[in-house]
Amino acid sequence: MTQEDYERRMERAGQTAAEAGLAGLVVTPGPDLTWLCGYQPPAVTERLTALVIAPGQRSRLLVPVLERPDAEHSIGSGAMEVSGWSDGSDPYAEIAKWIEPQGRYGVSDATWAMHLLGLQRSLPGSAYAALTEVLPMLRAVKDAHEVARLAAAGAAADATYEKILGVRFAGRRESEVAADLSRLLIEHGHSQVDFTVVGSGPNGANPHHEAGERVIEDGDMVVLDFGGLKDGYGSDTTRTVHVGEPGAEERKVHDIVREAQQAAFEAVRPGVACQDIDRVARRVIKAAGYGEYFIHRTGHGIGVTTHEPPYMVEGEHLPLVPGMCFSIEPGIYLPGRFGVRIEDIVTCTDTGGRRLNETAREMAVVR
Amino acid sequence: MTQEDYERRMERAGQTAAEAGLAGLVVTPGPDLTWLCGYQPPAVTERLTALVIAPGQRSRLLVPVLERPDAEHSIGSGAMEVSGWSDGSDPYAEIAKWIEPQGRYGVSDATWAMHLLGLQRSLPGSAYAALTEVLPMLRAVKDAHEVARLAAAGAAADATYEKILGVRFAGRRESEVAADLSRLLIEHGHSQVDFTVVGSGPNGANPHHEAGERVIEDGDMVVLDFGGLKDGYGSDTTRTVHVGEPGAEERKVHDIVREAQQAAFEAVRPGVACQDIDRVARRVIKAAGYGEYFIHRTGHGIGVTTHEPPYMVEGEHLPLVPGMCFSIEPGIYLPGRFGVRIEDIVTCTDTGGRRLNETAREMAVVR
Repeated sequence: MTQEDYERRMERAGQTAAEAGLAGLVVTPGPDLTWLCGYQPPAVTERLTALVIAPGQRSRLLVPVLERPDAEHSIGSGAMEVSGWSDGSDPYAEIAKWIEPQGRYGVSDATWAMHLLGLQRSLPGSAYAALTEVLPMLRAVKDAHEVARLAAAGAAADATYEKILGVRFAGRRESEVAADLSRLLIEHGHSQVDFTVVGSGPNGANPHHEAGERVIEDGDMVVLDFGGLKDGYGSDTTRTVHVGEPGAEERKVHDIVREAQQAAFEAVRPGVACQDIDRVARRVIKAAGYGEYFIHRTGHGIGVTTHEPPYMVEGEHLPLVPGMCFSIEPGIYLPGRFGVRIEDIVTCTDTGGRRLNETAREMAVVR
Repeated sequence: MTQEDYERRMERAGQTAAEAGLAGLVVTPGPDLTWLCGYQPPAVTERLTALVIAPGQRSRLLVPVLERPDAEHSIGSGAMEVSGWSDGSDPYAEIAKWIEPQGRYGVSDATWAMHLLGLQRSLPGSAYAALTEVLPMLRAVKDAHEVARLAAAGAAADATYEKILGVRFAGRRESEVAADLSRLLIEHGHSQVDFTVVGSGPNGANPHHEAGERVIEDGDMVVLDFGGLKDGYGSDTTRTVHVGEPGAEERKVHDIVREAQQAAFEAVRPGVACQDIDRVARRVIKAAGYGEYFIHRTGHGIGVTTHEPPYMVEGEHLPLVPGMCFSIEPGIYLPGRFGVRIEDIVTCTDTGGRRLNETAREMAVVR
């Protein structure tokens, strides 16, 4: 990425904002800021850092004065005005100078409430809406360069999965297998590990269980869901394995989830609404009689974060567009017994879906 | 901490809110949530998790349904109603049922703007203010148990400093010394390292420089600022060392900062306004002719985070109260040359200040 790349992104963001009827964008530290201008402050704190983008204008970045040197050394700094505010002064009054008093702005989702309230207080006539709701497409469509990064992250996650199949499961704690996953992701080029879920036996029935002190036993189903960032782009894949030979019901449930995941994948093509991807997966699981045990949406976007728009969820009418990258991850969770989830990152192409995870989706048997 | 401890904290928070004219509190994941009810979700995401506290009522926690098992297993769960919302439903409509439509609520500082906007949209007559502004005292006064934890974290940071004096500086990269600091903090019982600043030579003149690839040279001043969490409570200390014998100006600047830090420490006693601690330190540095090079506030509170109210900054009129714990960290930063900062955590007692960092404040000479 060069200064010109960031300049183009900010320019395009300003235009997109105008097309959506917004006076501009207010973006605080996080993935949107990094993506738009390349700047990542040393830490996200109570001190306001904010980028203001307005159509046709040069972008402005306000930072705490003691972080100005960092901001001025970032790659995109030449593409914007950088200014600093000092402790004891009012940063909201400062940033208010760049905001239309009656304007409606998109604001990054994770902006601190404290900062939003400061803006609302400084300019009571201004209005705000979360970027995800008002400009869900801002980062949702990836260019070829970004898809290549996501594919590389996916390949590294796949290599991690192939290796983890060779480790010992029975007799070891979930947290030990999670540490293996973490180490393997790093060995395969990840700079950051975001999650390493190891849900064995009944723990697998809690889709957000991470990894605990439970000792994995022979006969357990084990949900493995792991990912992080490689070269600034995310990976996220899930496979469910079995310690020793699975029983009939375990096979059956795994087959249903696999069928649901396959059906949703095959439904991917430009123009299909995000909610339809969810519906297709849900229909398969419902028809098999397990509808009440599929208790989450089917997927989420991925890019410079591992969780972002577009969401594959009932009520999301956004149509798929070539370049969108997202997870397809249906699951069935039988309380107190076991869970199954299968997840690939998929990108929408002109002709249909392309998987960025390629490992076998059949249930693997581990030791 | 027991369920009863959390129950008492939530009850007291509700009363404090009422005394401040609030209808209650809305608290999303982060230090306030952990401190109030003991619950920490697996991750902070776009899915709403929120605790609603209202005076005289049982507290209510809303979580994504797939995280309900985690919430129900947390220590404080018996002290509140826990309920779940499902993907595809509107969590803001759900939480709005527990909020007075015309009420004014305190909201945790780092609540996502997306969530605050969702609440404002669901209940246009409700109003919000950041907890730091409206209830800065919520977590600011520590009980004896908390001060003991902070003292233990401080002692671990001090032990880290004693050890780092023995490592080689000259010829090694800042990032290598930072890795030493990180390792030592962990060895001395920290569960999490939040920052390891190693600012050598001109890098020390940027107060928020972390640690980079610069090779430390003989004759460098080096700012060392490090801390993290031990048993859930924070450490944060800074010492500035010199590689080999320092010159006259380096000694002079270091002495001024030391004098400023000492004067501010001696000013600590109940009833003194936070801004006066800042003023005392600033007066010493100004009188010595370096006022323009002290470019940040004098300190910040510390507790279950390493940065929280009360802030020792111009404009902060809060009076010190026994049990408050905060940093005193004046500095002088000479652009392109070097920086000096000296920082201790201090707690206010009935009779004055007590330092939780005890290592020598004289400039140490390292190799």
